[in-house]
Amino acid sequence: MTDTIISSAGREVVIGFDRPFVVIGERINPTGRKLLAEEMKAGDFSRVEADAIAQVAAGANVLDVNAGIPLADEPALLAQAIRLVQSLSDVPLSIDSSVVEALEAGLEAYQGKALLNSVTGEEERLERVLPLVKKHGAAVVAICNDDSGISMDINERFEVAKKIVNRAADYGIPACDVVVDPLVMPVGAMGDAGVQVMQLIHRLRTELKVNTTCGASNVSFGLPNRPGLNPTFLAMAIGAGMTSAITNPLESSLMQAVRGADVLMNHDPQCANWIAANREPGAQGSRRRRGGRRRPPAKA
Amino acid sequence: MTDTIISSAGREVVIGFDRPFVVIGERINPTGRKLLAEEMKAGDFSRVEADAIAQVAAGANVLDVNAGIPLADEPALLAQAIRLVQSLSDVPLSIDSSVVEALEAGLEAYQGKALLNSVTGEEERLERVLPLVKKHGAAVVAICNDDSGISMDINERFEVAKKIVNRAADYGIPACDVVVDPLVMPVGAMGDAGVQVMQLIHRLRTELKVNTTCGASNVSFGLPNRPGLNPTFLAMAIGAGMTSAITNPLESSLMQAVRGADVLMNHDPQCANWIAANREPGAQGSRRRRGGRRRPPAKA
Repeated sequence: MTDTIISSAGREVVIGFDRPFVVIGERINPTGRKLLAEEMKAGDFSRVEADAIAQVAAGANVLDVNAGIPLADEPALLAQAIRLVQSLSDVPLSIDSSVVEALEAGLEAYQGKALLNSVTGEEERLERVLPLVKKHGAAVVAICNDDSGISMDINERFEVAKKIVNRAADYGIPACDVVVDPLVMPVGAMGDAGVQVMQLIHRLRTELKVNTTCGASNVSFGLPNRPGLNPTFLAMAIGAGMTSAITNPLESSLMQAVRGADVLMNHDPQCANWIAANREPGAQGSRRRRGGRRRPPAKA
Repeated sequence: MTDTIISSAGREVVIGFDRPFVVIGERINPTGRKLLAEEMKAGDFSRVEADAIAQVAAGANVLDVNAGIPLADEPALLAQAIRLVQSLSDVPLSIDSSVVEALEAGLEAYQGKALLNSVTGEEERLERVLPLVKKHGAAVVAICNDDSGISMDINERFEVAKKIVNRAADYGIPACDVVVDPLVMPVGAMGDAGVQVMQLIHRLRTELKVNTTCGASNVSFGLPNRPGLNPTFLAMAIGAGMTSAITNPLESSLMQAVRGADVLMNHDPQCANWIAANREPGAQGSRRRRGGRRRPPAKA
Protein backbone atom coordinates (compact mmCIF):
# COMPACT_ATOMS: atom_id res chain seq x y z
CA MET A 1 0.00 0.00 0.00
CA THR A 2 2.70 2.43 -1.08
CA ASP A 3 1.68 6.06 -1.67
CA THR A 4 3.91 8.52 -3.52
CA ILE A 5 2.65 12.01 -2.82
CA ILE A 6 3.56 14.81 -5.19
CA SER A 7 2.11 18.30 -5.14
CA SER A 8 1.94 21.80 -6.53
CA ALA A 9 1.25 24.79 -4.28
CA GLY A 10 -2.45 24.04 -4.47
CA ARG A 11 -2.95 20.38 -5.32
CA GLU A 12 -1.77 16.97 -4.18
CA VAL A 13 -1.65 13.89 -6.40
CA VAL A 14 -1.03 10.44 -4.99
CA ILE A 15 0.45 7.61 -7.01
CA GLY A 16 -0.49 4.49 -5.10
CA PHE A 17 -1.46 0.82 -5.10
CA ASP A 18 -5.04 1.57 -4.09
CA ARG A 19 -5.42 4.78 -6.06
CA PRO A 20 -6.72 5.72 -9.50
CA PHE A 21 -4.02 5.38 -12.13
CA VAL A 22 -1.94 8.55 -12.56
CA VAL A 23 -1.45 9.87 -16.09
CA ILE A 24 1.66 12.01 -16.52
CA GLY A 25 1.22 14.05 -19.71
CA GLU A 26 4.26 13.68 -21.97
CA ARG A 27 3.61 16.39 -24.55
CA ILE A 28 5.76 19.24 -23.21
CA ASN A 29 8.96 17.80 -24.61
CA PRO A 30 10.86 19.22 -27.58
CA THR A 31 12.55 15.89 -28.31
CA GLY A 32 11.41 14.99 -31.82
CA ARG A 33 9.22 18.11 -32.02
CA LYS A 34 11.29 20.45 -34.16
CA LEU A 35 8.84 23.32 -34.21
CA LEU A 36 8.40 23.28 -30.43
CA ALA A 37 12.18 23.16 -29.99
CA GLU A 38 12.72 26.16 -32.25
CA GLU A 39 9.97 28.16 -30.60
CA MET A 40 11.17 27.45 -27.06
CA LYS A 41 14.73 28.31 -28.00
CA ALA A 42 13.47 31.63 -29.40
CA GLY A 43 11.54 32.30 -26.20
CA ASP A 44 8.10 31.54 -27.64
CA PHE A 45 6.30 29.35 -25.08
CA SER A 46 2.82 29.58 -26.62
CA ARG A 47 2.85 25.90 -27.62
CA VAL A 48 3.95 24.87 -24.13
CA GLU A 49 0.99 26.83 -22.82
CA ALA A 50 -1.44 25.19 -25.24
CA ASP A 51 -0.02 21.72 -24.54
CA ALA A 52 -0.37 22.24 -20.79
CA ILE A 53 -3.98 23.35 -21.01
CA ALA A 54 -5.00 20.65 -23.49
CA GLN A 55 -3.42 17.84 -21.50
CA VAL A 56 -5.02 18.90 -18.23
CA ALA A 57 -8.39 19.23 -19.98
CA ALA A 58 -7.93 15.71 -21.39
CA GLY A 59 -7.43 14.32 -17.90
CA ALA A 60 -3.68 14.39 -17.19
CA ASN A 61 -3.04 14.28 -13.44
CA VAL A 62 0.59 15.41 -13.68
CA LEU A 63 2.50 17.13 -16.49
CA ASP A 64 6.01 16.19 -17.51
CA VAL A 65 8.07 19.25 -18.50
CA ASN A 66 11.21 18.79 -20.58
CA ALA A 67 13.28 21.50 -22.28
CA GLY A 68 16.05 19.38 -23.77
CA ILE A 69 17.05 21.44 -26.80
CA PRO A 70 20.56 21.11 -28.28
CA LEU A 71 22.75 24.21 -27.88
CA ALA A 72 20.18 25.96 -25.73
CA ASP A 73 20.42 27.06 -22.09
CA GLU A 74 18.40 24.11 -20.85
CA PRO A 75 18.41 25.01 -17.12
CA ALA A 76 16.99 28.48 -17.87
CA LEU A 77 14.45 27.20 -20.38
CA LEU A 78 13.27 24.44 -18.05
CA ALA A 79 12.88 26.84 -15.12
CA GLN A 80 10.94 29.22 -17.36
CA ALA A 81 8.67 26.47 -18.68
CA ILE A 82 7.98 25.26 -15.15
CA ARG A 83 7.05 28.72 -13.91
CA LEU A 84 4.79 29.20 -16.90
CA VAL A 85 3.02 25.84 -16.53
CA GLN A 86 2.56 26.39 -12.80
CA SER A 87 0.95 29.75 -13.53
CA LEU A 88 -1.57 28.03 -15.83
CA SER A 89 -2.56 24.95 -13.87
CA ASP A 90 -2.24 23.52 -10.40
CA VAL A 91 -1.41 19.96 -11.48
CA PRO A 92 1.92 18.82 -10.03
CA LEU A 93 4.83 18.52 -12.44
CA SER A 94 7.42 15.98 -13.39
CA ILE A 95 10.71 17.85 -13.98
CA ASP A 96 12.36 16.02 -16.84
CA SER A 97 15.95 16.33 -17.98
CA SER A 98 19.09 14.31 -18.56
CA VAL A 99 21.12 17.35 -17.48
CA VAL A 100 21.62 17.57 -13.73
CA GLU A 101 21.94 21.38 -13.80
CA ALA A 102 18.56 21.59 -15.51
CA LEU A 103 16.98 19.31 -12.89
CA GLU A 104 18.42 21.59 -10.23
CA ALA A 105 17.16 24.77 -11.89
CA GLY A 106 13.76 23.14 -12.35
CA LEU A 107 13.56 22.16 -8.69
CA GLU A 108 14.49 25.68 -7.63
CA ALA A 109 11.79 27.18 -9.81
CA TYR A 110 9.15 24.66 -8.71
CA GLN A 111 6.46 25.30 -6.10
CA GLY A 112 5.53 22.12 -4.25
CA LYS A 113 6.86 18.55 -4.13
CA ALA A 114 7.93 17.62 -7.65
CA LEU A 115 8.51 14.30 -9.33
CA LEU A 116 12.10 14.46 -10.59
CA ASN A 117 12.56 12.60 -13.89
CA SER A 118 14.99 10.89 -13.51
CA VAL A 119 17.80 9.01 -11.87
CA THR A 120 19.28 5.79 -13.22
CA GLY A 121 21.47 3.16 -11.59
CA GLU A 122 24.57 4.80 -13.10
CA GLU A 123 26.98 5.72 -10.31
CA GLU A 124 27.53 9.28 -11.41
CA ARG A 125 23.78 9.91 -11.74
CA LEU A 126 23.05 8.42 -8.34
CA GLU A 127 25.67 10.61 -6.71
CA ARG A 128 24.51 13.80 -8.38
CA VAL A 129 20.72 13.39 -8.55
CA LEU A 130 19.86 11.80 -5.20
CA PRO A 131 21.25 14.70 -3.11
CA LEU A 132 19.02 17.03 -5.14
CA VAL A 133 16.00 14.85 -4.50
CA LYS A 134 16.74 14.88 -0.79
CA LYS A 135 17.51 18.59 -0.61
CA HIS A 136 14.23 19.56 -2.29
CA GLY A 137 12.12 16.85 -0.67
CA ALA A 138 11.08 15.60 -4.11
CA ALA A 139 10.05 12.18 -5.39
CA VAL A 140 12.11 10.63 -8.17
CA VAL A 141 11.65 8.39 -11.19
CA ALA A 142 14.22 5.59 -11.10
CA ILE A 143 15.04 4.07 -14.46
CA CYS A 144 16.22 0.45 -14.47
CA ASN A 145 19.49 0.85 -16.35
CA ASP A 146 22.98 1.27 -14.97
CA ASP A 147 26.55 1.80 -16.13
CA SER A 148 26.35 -1.42 -18.17
CA GLY A 149 23.32 -0.12 -20.10
CA ILE A 150 19.84 -1.66 -20.28
CA SER A 151 19.83 -5.35 -19.46
CA MET A 152 17.48 -7.59 -21.45
CA ASP A 153 17.27 -9.78 -18.33
CA ILE A 154 14.44 -8.56 -16.10
CA ASN A 155 16.14 -10.01 -13.03
CA GLU A 156 19.04 -7.66 -13.64
CA ARG A 157 16.68 -4.73 -14.18
CA PHE A 158 15.01 -5.64 -10.88
CA GLU A 159 18.42 -5.57 -9.19
CA VAL A 160 19.12 -2.10 -10.61
CA ALA A 161 15.80 -0.89 -9.18
CA LYS A 162 16.70 -2.40 -5.82
CA LYS A 163 20.09 -0.74 -5.90
CA ILE A 164 18.53 2.68 -6.58
CA VAL A 165 15.96 2.23 -3.79
CA ASN A 166 18.72 1.23 -1.36
CA ARG A 167 20.98 4.08 -2.43
CA ALA A 168 18.08 6.51 -2.05
CA ALA A 169 17.55 5.21 1.49
CA ASP A 170 21.21 6.02 2.21
CA TYR A 171 20.36 9.62 1.37
CA GLY A 172 17.27 9.55 3.56
CA ILE A 173 14.82 9.21 0.67
CA PRO A 174 12.07 6.71 1.49
CA ALA A 175 11.13 3.96 -0.99
CA CYS A 176 7.68 5.52 -1.37
CA ASP A 177 9.38 8.50 -3.02
CA VAL A 178 11.04 6.32 -5.65
CA VAL A 179 8.81 5.55 -8.66
CA VAL A 180 10.47 2.86 -10.73
CA ASP A 181 10.40 2.82 -14.53
CA PRO A 182 10.97 -0.82 -15.54
CA LEU A 183 11.79 0.27 -19.12
CA VAL A 184 9.32 -0.79 -21.77
CA MET A 185 10.96 -2.28 -24.86
CA PRO A 186 9.31 -2.36 -28.31
CA VAL A 187 7.43 -5.61 -28.69
CA GLY A 188 7.90 -5.51 -32.45
CA ALA A 189 11.64 -5.95 -31.99
CA MET A 190 11.52 -8.20 -28.90
CA GLY A 191 8.60 -10.60 -28.83
CA ASP A 192 8.70 -11.16 -25.08
CA ALA A 193 8.98 -7.46 -24.19
CA GLY A 194 5.35 -7.31 -23.07
CA VAL A 195 5.40 -10.47 -20.95
CA GLN A 196 8.72 -9.50 -19.40
CA VAL A 197 7.77 -5.99 -18.43
CA MET A 198 4.52 -7.23 -16.87
CA GLN A 199 6.47 -9.73 -14.79
CA LEU A 200 8.90 -7.00 -13.75
CA ILE A 201 6.07 -4.62 -12.80
CA HIS A 202 4.55 -7.36 -10.67
CA ARG A 203 7.86 -8.03 -8.90
CA LEU A 204 8.52 -4.33 -8.34
CA ARG A 205 5.13 -4.03 -6.69
CA THR A 206 5.05 -7.22 -4.64
CA GLU A 207 8.72 -7.59 -3.70
CA LEU A 208 10.19 -4.08 -3.76
CA LYS A 209 6.77 -2.55 -2.93
CA VAL A 210 7.36 0.56 -5.04
CA ASN A 211 5.16 2.51 -7.38
CA THR A 212 5.92 2.25 -11.08
CA THR A 213 5.72 4.37 -14.19
CA CYS A 214 6.78 3.94 -17.78
CA GLY A 215 6.91 5.50 -21.20
CA ALA A 216 3.94 3.42 -22.26
CA SER A 217 3.89 4.13 -25.97
CA ASN A 218 7.38 2.74 -26.49
CA VAL A 219 5.87 -0.76 -26.53
CA SER A 220 4.36 -0.25 -29.99
CA PHE A 221 7.38 1.40 -31.62
CA GLY A 222 7.73 0.28 -35.25
CA LEU A 223 4.30 -1.35 -35.48
CA PRO A 224 1.27 -0.12 -37.42
CA ASN A 225 -1.74 1.33 -35.58
CA ARG A 226 0.17 2.26 -32.43
CA PRO A 227 -2.85 4.05 -30.89
CA GLY A 228 -4.70 0.74 -31.27
CA LEU A 229 -2.06 -1.24 -29.36
CA ASN A 230 -1.07 1.20 -26.60
CA PRO A 231 -4.38 1.12 -24.67
CA THR A 232 -4.25 -2.69 -24.55
CA PHE A 233 -0.71 -2.57 -23.17
CA LEU A 234 -1.69 0.02 -20.60
CA ALA A 235 -4.66 -2.07 -19.45
CA MET A 236 -2.49 -5.16 -19.08
CA ALA A 237 0.27 -3.24 -17.28
CA ILE A 238 -2.25 -1.74 -14.84
CA GLY A 239 -3.62 -5.23 -14.23
CA ALA A 240 -0.05 -6.35 -13.50
CA GLY A 241 0.29 -3.57 -10.93
CA MET A 242 1.58 -0.45 -12.70
CA THR A 243 0.42 2.73 -10.96
CA SER A 244 1.32 5.57 -13.36
CA ALA A 245 2.54 6.20 -16.91
CA ILE A 246 4.16 9.00 -18.84
CA THR A 247 2.01 9.08 -21.92
CA ASN A 248 -0.20 11.14 -24.21
CA PRO A 249 -3.55 12.04 -22.60
CA LEU A 250 -4.70 13.51 -25.92
CA GLU A 251 -5.11 9.95 -27.23
CA SER A 252 -8.73 9.45 -26.25
CA SER A 253 -8.56 5.64 -26.61
CA LEU A 254 -5.73 5.62 -24.09
CA MET A 255 -7.63 7.71 -21.56
CA GLN A 256 -10.63 5.44 -22.07
CA ALA A 257 -8.45 2.43 -21.22
CA VAL A 258 -7.14 4.20 -18.10
CA ARG A 259 -10.65 5.09 -16.93
CA GLY A 260 -11.83 1.56 -17.70
CA ALA A 261 -8.89 0.04 -15.83
CA ASP A 262 -9.70 2.23 -12.81
CA VAL A 263 -13.23 0.79 -12.84
CA LEU A 264 -11.94 -2.77 -13.16
CA MET A 265 -9.30 -2.31 -10.43
CA ASN A 266 -12.06 -0.97 -8.12
CA HIS A 267 -10.38 2.44 -8.03
CA ASP A 268 -13.40 4.35 -9.33
CA PRO A 269 -16.02 4.27 -6.55
CA GLN A 270 -19.54 3.75 -7.94
CA CYS A 271 -17.89 4.02 -11.39
CA ALA A 272 -18.44 7.77 -11.00
CA ASN A 273 -15.59 8.85 -13.26
CA TRP A 274 -16.49 6.32 -15.92
CA ILE A 275 -20.11 7.40 -15.92
CA ALA A 276 -19.16 11.10 -16.00
CA ALA A 277 -16.77 10.58 -18.92
CA ASN A 278 -19.36 8.59 -20.86
CA ARG A 279 -22.55 10.33 -19.84
CA GLU A 280 -23.48 11.74 -23.22
CA PRO A 281 -22.76 10.30 -26.65
CA GLY A 282 -19.52 11.81 -27.87
CA ALA A 283 -18.39 12.82 -24.38
CA GLN A 284 -15.02 11.17 -24.99
CA GLY A 285 -14.70 12.47 -28.52
CA SER A 286 -15.48 16.01 -27.54
CA ARG A 287 -12.42 16.09 -25.29
CA ARG A 288 -10.22 15.18 -28.19
CA ARG A 289 -8.27 18.29 -29.06
CA ARG A 290 -5.92 17.09 -31.75
CA GLY A 291 -6.33 15.62 -35.20
CA GLY A 292 -9.22 17.75 -36.38
CA ARG A 293 -11.67 14.99 -37.20
CA ARG A 294 -13.85 13.81 -34.38
CA ARG A 295 -14.68 10.17 -33.97
CA PRO A 296 -18.33 9.21 -34.10
CA PRO A 297 -19.87 8.73 -30.66
CA ALA A 298 -19.23 5.35 -29.10
CA LYS A 299 -22.14 2.94 -29.49
CA ALA A 300 -23.96 2.72 -26.14
CA MET B 1 0.99 -25.58 -20.46
CA THR B 2 -2.53 -26.93 -20.75
CA ASP B 3 -3.97 -27.38 -24.25
CA THR B 4 -7.69 -27.91 -24.86
CA ILE B 5 -8.13 -29.23 -28.39
CA ILE B 6 -11.49 -28.86 -30.07
CA SER B 7 -12.24 -29.56 -33.71
CA SER B 8 -14.63 -29.74 -36.60
CA ALA B 9 -14.28 -32.33 -39.36
CA GLY B 10 -11.69 -30.14 -41.04
CA ARG B 11 -10.14 -27.82 -38.47
CA GLU B 12 -8.56 -27.98 -35.04
CA VAL B 13 -8.50 -25.09 -32.57
CA VAL B 14 -6.38 -25.17 -29.44
CA ILE B 15 -7.19 -23.16 -26.32
CA GLY B 16 -3.94 -23.03 -24.40
CA PHE B 17 -1.58 -21.16 -22.10
CA ASP B 18 0.94 -20.56 -24.88
CA ARG B 19 -1.54 -20.04 -27.70
CA PRO B 20 -3.26 -17.07 -29.27
CA PHE B 21 -6.42 -16.14 -27.41
CA VAL B 22 -9.51 -18.00 -28.64
CA VAL B 23 -12.61 -15.95 -29.44
CA ILE B 24 -15.85 -17.92 -29.23
CA GLY B 25 -18.51 -15.98 -31.16
CA GLU B 26 -21.63 -15.48 -29.03
CA ARG B 27 -24.09 -14.17 -31.61
CA ILE B 28 -26.00 -17.35 -32.52
CA ASN B 29 -28.18 -17.20 -29.45
CA PRO B 30 -31.90 -16.31 -29.45
CA THR B 31 -31.81 -15.22 -25.79
CA GLY B 32 -32.81 -11.57 -25.84
CA ARG B 33 -33.05 -11.58 -29.66
CA LYS B 34 -36.78 -11.76 -30.25
CA LEU B 35 -36.61 -11.69 -34.05
CA LEU B 36 -34.02 -14.45 -34.21
CA ALA B 37 -36.06 -16.53 -31.78
CA GLU B 38 -39.23 -16.16 -33.86
CA GLU B 39 -37.43 -16.93 -37.10
CA MET B 40 -35.70 -20.03 -35.74
CA LYS B 41 -38.94 -21.31 -34.25
CA ALA B 42 -40.59 -20.88 -37.67
CA GLY B 43 -37.74 -22.78 -39.33
CA ASP B 44 -36.07 -19.72 -40.86
CA PHE B 45 -32.32 -20.03 -40.19
CA SER B 46 -31.18 -17.25 -42.53
CA ARG B 47 -30.06 -15.06 -39.63
CA VAL B 48 -28.12 -17.95 -38.08
CA GLU B 49 -26.40 -18.33 -41.42
CA ALA B 50 -25.56 -14.63 -41.66
CA ASP B 51 -24.35 -14.51 -38.04
CA ALA B 52 -22.11 -17.52 -38.60
CA ILE B 53 -20.49 -16.07 -41.70
CA ALA B 54 -20.04 -12.59 -40.25
CA GLN B 55 -18.48 -13.82 -37.01
CA VAL B 56 -15.99 -16.06 -38.80
CA ALA B 57 -15.10 -13.19 -41.15
CA ALA B 58 -14.54 -10.96 -38.12
CA GLY B 59 -12.07 -13.43 -36.65
CA ALA B 60 -14.05 -15.78 -34.39
CA ASN B 61 -12.09 -19.01 -33.85
CA VAL B 62 -15.08 -20.97 -32.51
CA LEU B 63 -18.83 -20.32 -32.74
CA ASP B 64 -21.22 -20.82 -29.87
CA VAL B 65 -24.60 -22.17 -31.03
CA ASN B 66 -27.63 -21.84 -28.78
CA ALA B 67 -31.27 -22.53 -29.67
CA GLY B 68 -32.92 -21.84 -26.34
CA ILE B 69 -36.38 -20.70 -27.38
CA PRO B 70 -39.34 -21.03 -25.00
CA LEU B 71 -41.96 -23.57 -26.08
CA ALA B 72 -39.85 -24.76 -29.01
CA ASP B 73 -38.33 -28.17 -29.66
CA GLU B 74 -34.88 -27.06 -28.55
CA PRO B 75 -33.06 -30.36 -29.20
CA ALA B 76 -34.29 -30.45 -32.81
CA LEU B 77 -33.57 -26.75 -33.40
CA LEU B 78 -30.09 -26.99 -31.91
CA ALA B 79 -29.21 -30.04 -34.00
CA GLN B 80 -30.49 -28.28 -37.11
CA ALA B 81 -28.55 -25.10 -36.35
CA ILE B 82 -25.37 -27.10 -35.76
CA ARG B 83 -25.69 -28.98 -39.03
CA LEU B 84 -26.31 -25.71 -40.86
CA VAL B 85 -23.36 -23.87 -39.29
CA GLN B 86 -21.06 -26.83 -39.94
CA SER B 87 -22.12 -26.79 -43.59
CA LEU B 88 -21.08 -23.12 -43.84
CA SER B 89 -17.78 -23.01 -41.98
CA ASP B 90 -15.18 -25.36 -40.60
CA VAL B 91 -14.66 -23.52 -37.30
CA PRO B 92 -15.34 -25.81 -34.33
CA LEU B 93 -18.51 -25.18 -32.35
CA SER B 94 -19.52 -24.67 -28.77
CA ILE B 95 -22.82 -26.47 -28.23
CA ASP B 96 -24.74 -24.28 -25.83
CA SER B 97 -27.84 -25.18 -23.87
CA SER B 98 -29.21 -25.44 -20.37
CA VAL B 99 -31.30 -28.41 -21.49
CA VAL B 100 -29.44 -31.71 -21.31
CA GLU B 101 -31.51 -33.27 -24.12
CA ALA B 102 -30.51 -30.40 -26.39
CA LEU B 103 -26.83 -30.85 -25.52
CA GLU B 104 -27.21 -34.52 -26.40
CA ALA B 105 -28.95 -33.82 -29.69
CA GLY B 106 -26.30 -31.23 -30.50
CA LEU B 107 -23.47 -33.66 -29.80
CA GLU B 108 -25.11 -36.29 -31.98
CA ALA B 109 -25.45 -33.85 -34.86
CA TYR B 110 -21.90 -32.52 -34.48
CA GLN B 111 -18.91 -33.54 -36.59
CA GLY B 112 -15.68 -33.35 -34.61
CA LYS B 113 -14.73 -32.70 -30.99
CA ALA B 114 -17.11 -30.07 -29.65
CA LEU B 115 -16.91 -27.75 -26.70
CA LEU B 116 -20.02 -28.50 -24.65
CA ASN B 117 -21.43 -25.40 -22.96
CA SER B 118 -21.92 -26.17 -20.10
CA VAL B 119 -21.80 -28.10 -16.88
CA THR B 120 -22.01 -26.49 -13.43
CA GLY B 121 -21.15 -27.79 -9.98
CA GLU B 122 -24.81 -28.70 -9.40
CA GLU B 123 -25.07 -32.38 -8.60
CA GLU B 124 -27.81 -33.16 -11.10
CA ARG B 125 -25.94 -31.35 -13.91
CA LEU B 126 -22.68 -33.12 -13.12
CA GLU B 127 -24.40 -36.51 -13.22
CA ARG B 128 -26.21 -35.85 -16.47
CA VAL B 129 -23.72 -33.77 -18.48
CA LEU B 130 -20.36 -35.41 -17.69
CA PRO B 131 -21.35 -38.83 -19.08
CA LEU B 132 -22.32 -37.08 -22.35
CA VAL B 133 -18.95 -35.31 -22.46
CA LYS B 134 -17.18 -38.62 -21.96
CA LYS B 135 -19.34 -40.56 -24.42
CA HIS B 136 -18.76 -38.05 -27.23
CA GLY B 137 -15.13 -37.28 -26.34
CA ALA B 138 -15.97 -33.57 -26.07
CA ALA B 139 -14.48 -30.77 -24.02
CA VAL B 140 -16.72 -28.93 -21.58
CA VAL B 141 -17.19 -25.46 -20.14
CA ALA B 142 -17.42 -25.67 -16.35
CA ILE B 143 -19.27 -22.81 -14.71
CA CYS B 144 -18.30 -21.96 -11.12
CA ASN B 145 -21.70 -22.19 -9.47
CA ASP B 146 -23.28 -25.09 -7.63
CA ASP B 147 -26.50 -26.07 -5.88
CA SER B 148 -26.09 -23.12 -3.52
CA GLY B 149 -25.95 -20.65 -6.42
CA ILE B 150 -23.12 -18.27 -7.33
CA SER B 151 -20.84 -17.50 -4.42
CA MET B 152 -19.51 -13.96 -4.14
CA ASP B 153 -16.42 -15.46 -2.47
CA ILE B 154 -13.88 -16.36 -5.13
CA ASN B 155 -12.37 -19.04 -2.89
CA GLU B 156 -15.70 -20.84 -2.98
CA ARG B 157 -15.93 -20.41 -6.75
CA PHE B 158 -12.43 -21.89 -7.00
CA GLU B 159 -13.57 -24.87 -4.94
CA VAL B 160 -16.54 -25.41 -7.26
CA ALA B 161 -14.15 -25.44 -10.25
CA LYS B 162 -11.94 -27.94 -8.44
CA LYS B 163 -14.93 -30.15 -7.67
CA ILE B 164 -16.00 -30.17 -11.33
CA VAL B 165 -12.47 -30.99 -12.50
CA ASN B 166 -12.25 -33.83 -9.97
CA ARG B 167 -15.68 -35.15 -10.86
CA ALA B 168 -14.79 -35.01 -14.56
CA ALA B 169 -11.68 -37.07 -13.78
CA ASP B 170 -13.92 -39.70 -12.18
CA TYR B 171 -15.65 -40.02 -15.56
CA GLY B 172 -12.30 -40.25 -17.34
CA ILE B 173 -12.36 -36.68 -18.65
CA PRO B 174 -8.91 -35.06 -18.34
CA ALA B 175 -8.54 -31.59 -16.79
CA CYS B 176 -7.33 -30.27 -20.14
CA ASP B 177 -10.84 -30.92 -21.49
CA VAL B 178 -12.46 -28.77 -18.80
CA VAL B 179 -12.51 -25.04 -19.60
CA VAL B 180 -13.53 -23.14 -16.48
CA ASP B 181 -15.79 -20.09 -16.57
CA PRO B 182 -15.03 -18.15 -13.36
CA LEU B 183 -18.26 -16.13 -13.78
CA VAL B 184 -17.81 -12.46 -14.51
CA MET B 185 -20.03 -10.21 -12.40
CA PRO B 186 -21.07 -6.68 -13.40
CA VAL B 187 -18.54 -4.24 -11.99
CA GLY B 188 -21.20 -1.52 -11.85
CA ALA B 189 -23.06 -3.48 -9.20
CA MET B 190 -20.04 -4.99 -7.44
CA GLY B 191 -16.98 -2.75 -7.36
CA ASP B 192 -14.49 -5.54 -6.78
CA ALA B 193 -15.89 -7.81 -9.50
CA GLY B 194 -12.97 -7.03 -11.82
CA VAL B 195 -10.21 -7.51 -9.27
CA GLN B 196 -11.82 -10.68 -7.95
CA VAL B 197 -12.31 -12.37 -11.30
CA MET B 198 -8.70 -11.57 -12.29
CA GLN B 199 -7.47 -13.18 -9.08
CA LEU B 200 -9.67 -16.20 -9.72
CA ILE B 201 -8.46 -16.53 -13.32
CA HIS B 202 -4.87 -16.43 -12.04
CA ARG B 203 -5.55 -19.15 -9.47
CA LEU B 204 -7.40 -21.34 -11.97
CA ARG B 205 -4.40 -21.13 -14.26
CA THR B 206 -1.57 -21.50 -11.76
CA GLU B 207 -3.13 -23.84 -9.18
CA LEU B 208 -5.78 -25.83 -11.06
CA LYS B 209 -3.85 -25.48 -14.34
CA VAL B 210 -6.99 -25.27 -16.48
CA ASN B 211 -7.96 -23.14 -19.42
CA THR B 212 -10.57 -20.48 -18.81
CA THR B 213 -13.36 -18.74 -20.67
CA CYS B 214 -16.02 -16.23 -19.75
CA GLY B 215 -18.93 -14.19 -20.98
CA ALA B 216 -16.70 -11.14 -21.15
CA SER B 217 -19.30 -8.47 -21.82
CA ASN B 218 -21.15 -9.17 -18.57
CA VAL B 219 -18.55 -7.08 -16.74
CA SER B 220 -19.96 -3.82 -18.15
CA PHE B 221 -23.65 -4.59 -17.61
CA GLY B 222 -25.55 -1.47 -16.57
CA LEU B 223 -22.74 0.98 -17.41
CA PRO B 224 -22.60 3.46 -20.28
CA ASN B 225 -20.26 2.88 -23.23
CA ARG B 226 -19.99 -0.87 -22.73
CA PRO B 227 -18.00 -1.34 -25.97
CA GLY B 228 -15.49 1.11 -24.49
CA LEU B 229 -15.03 -0.89 -21.29
CA ASN B 230 -15.14 -4.48 -22.55
CA PRO B 231 -11.83 -4.40 -24.49
CA THR B 232 -10.01 -3.10 -21.39
CA PHE B 233 -11.47 -5.90 -19.30
CA LEU B 234 -10.51 -8.47 -21.90
CA ALA B 235 -6.93 -7.17 -22.05
CA MET B 236 -6.61 -7.30 -18.26
CA ALA B 237 -8.17 -10.76 -18.06
CA ILE B 238 -5.80 -12.07 -20.75
CA GLY B 239 -2.91 -10.57 -18.80
CA ALA B 240 -4.18 -12.41 -15.72
CA GLY B 241 -4.15 -15.68 -17.68
CA MET B 242 -7.53 -16.09 -19.37
CA THR B 243 -7.25 -18.15 -22.56
CA SER B 244 -10.64 -17.77 -24.29
CA ALA B 245 -13.87 -15.78 -24.11
CA ILE B 246 -17.42 -16.11 -25.35
CA THR B 247 -17.98 -12.69 -26.79
CA ASN B 248 -18.97 -10.63 -29.81
CA PRO B 249 -16.30 -10.65 -32.55
CA LEU B 250 -18.30 -8.05 -34.47
CA GLU B 251 -17.14 -5.43 -31.94
CA SER B 252 -14.01 -4.29 -33.75
CA SER B 253 -12.51 -2.64 -30.66
CA LEU B 254 -12.76 -5.95 -28.86
CA MET B 255 -11.01 -7.86 -31.63
CA GLN B 256 -8.35 -5.16 -31.68
CA ALA B 257 -7.76 -5.71 -27.95
CA VAL B 258 -7.53 -9.47 -28.50
CA ARG B 259 -5.02 -9.07 -31.32
CA GLY B 260 -3.06 -6.55 -29.26
CA ALA B 261 -3.05 -8.83 -26.23
CA ASP B 262 -1.74 -11.67 -28.42
CA VAL B 263 1.17 -9.41 -29.43
CA LEU B 264 1.85 -8.41 -25.82
CA MET B 265 1.63 -11.99 -24.53
CA ASN B 266 4.13 -13.02 -27.24
CA HIS B 267 1.52 -15.21 -28.90
CA ASP B 268 1.73 -13.49 -32.28
CA PRO B 269 5.12 -14.41 -33.77
CA GLN B 270 6.73 -11.43 -35.53
CA CYS B 271 3.46 -9.59 -34.81
CA ALA B 272 2.27 -11.09 -38.09
CA ASN B 273 -1.44 -11.09 -37.24
CA TRP B 274 -1.29 -7.58 -35.85
CA ILE B 275 0.48 -6.28 -38.93
CA ALA B 276 -1.92 -8.09 -41.27
CA ALA B 277 -4.97 -6.73 -39.45
CA ASN B 278 -3.58 -3.19 -39.49
CA ARG B 279 -1.76 -3.16 -42.79
CA GLU B 280 -3.96 -0.68 -44.61
CA PRO B 281 -5.95 2.16 -43.14
CA GLY B 282 -9.43 0.84 -42.44
CA ALA B 283 -8.34 -2.80 -42.41
CA GLN B 284 -10.09 -3.26 -39.06
CA GLY B 285 -13.11 -1.21 -40.01
CA SER B 286 -13.67 -2.99 -43.27
CA ARG B 287 -14.27 -6.26 -41.42
CA ARG B 288 -17.10 -4.70 -39.52
CA ARG B 289 -20.27 -6.13 -40.94
CA ARG B 290 -22.95 -4.80 -38.62
CA GLY B 291 -24.26 -1.43 -37.66
CA GLY B 292 -24.28 0.16 -41.07
CA ARG B 293 -21.93 3.01 -40.32
CA ARG B 294 -18.28 2.28 -40.65
CA ARG B 295 -15.80 3.77 -38.26
CA PRO B 296 -13.14 5.98 -39.74
CA PRO B 297 -9.84 4.20 -40.34
CA ALA B 298 -7.61 3.90 -37.29
CA LYS B 299 -4.95 6.59 -37.17
CA ALA B 300 -1.64 5.04 -38.19
